[in-house]
Amino acid sequence: MRKLDDYVKTIPDYPHPGIMFRDVTSVLQDPEGLKLSIHEMMHLLEGVEFDVVVGTEARGFLFGMPIAYNKHKGFVPVRKKGKLPRETVSKKYDLEYGKAEIEVHKDAIFPGQRVVLVDDLLATGGTSRAAVDLIEELGGKVVKIIFLMELAGLHGRDKLAGYDVEAALVYPGK
Amino acid sequence: MRKLDDYVKTIPDYPHPGIMFRDVTSVLQDPEGLKLSIHEMMHLLEGVEFDVVVGTEARGFLFGMPIAYNKHKGFVPVRKKGKLPRETVSKKYDLEYGKAEIEVHKDAIFPGQRVVLVDDLLATGGTSRAAVDLIEELGGKVVKIIFLMELAGLHGRDKLAGYDVEAALVYPGK
Repeated sequence: MRKLDDYVKTIPDYPHPGIMFRDVTSVLQDPEGLKLSIHEMMHLLEGVEFDVVVGTEARGFLFGMPIAYNKHKGFVPVRKKGKLPRETVSKKYDLEYGKAEIEVHKDAIFPGQRVVLVDDLLATGGTSRAAVDLIEELGGKVVKIIFLMELAGLHGRDKLAGYDVEAALVYPGK
Repeated sequence: MRKLDDYVKTIPDYPHPGIMFRDVTSVLQDPEGLKLSIHEMMHLLEGVEFDVVVGTEARGFLFGMPIAYNKHKGFVPVRKKGKLPRETVSKKYDLEYGKAEIEVHKDAIFPGQRVVLVDDLLATGGTSRAAVDLIEELGGKVVKIIFLMELAGLHGRDKLAGYDVEAALVYPGK
């Protein structure tokens, strides 16, 4: 039987030389790969009491929604600046080159809500850190942060110190 | 009991004066709204034989993935130009202002595969039409196109004539 890892295609030197790009789309295009990815991420949530799933645009949507649906929770998207129609709170953060800004609807998370943050990949952790800050600004409590994959060599966990962080697949490199 | 429609917040004059913006995020942030949205979209697929779900970035990801997972199919993302790491086919199309370009991995759809295309909103139909063209360029057969919402006054169906198109919610206006 194929393991989750077997479905991940690796593209060397993409998008920059020296980067081993782990392609999540190759997992999802196979029904078994897709099923395994969601099962293994939901497994990371066993025993976790929570109220809502937050996912970051765009690949966090892919995993956050099936998990929210199957756990019968709500889903809140964190989007790039300018794409949400109602009142938001927003946060700027640094990328490898330049800056980015993400936002979330102000009424989407209530004070005291227990939040699970979901994304496809933990790399440098910058986007996840900004999402955590937005959730906390609205009074939410981040009880767990889960990823399909973690590139441990980029030390993204350092930016998420103090939180319960897990990934279904951990790669030692970058 | 609340109906699906009750969860949709409408924002007048967004993003332009005269537009009644139907906000899908207000549906998803409520566990019951989210569940209803996926149930009603899956209901549109009853009796449809298909192999794979295709969803367009970014809001098509929200609905395509839970449907693919729960129907035990693969999911293929159609993304904005420049975000997919492997070999792609791409398609330019007209927007209200300017042009856009979307693409899909060349190996993601096989000749003869039966495809369900999923998105949140049928407005002018331009993005969906471009996605259909990409699927067919790879030899896929579009057996059904489903949306959460349709703005019937924008006549997006005209661009999808000849296909089996359904939406869970149909609004008469724009």
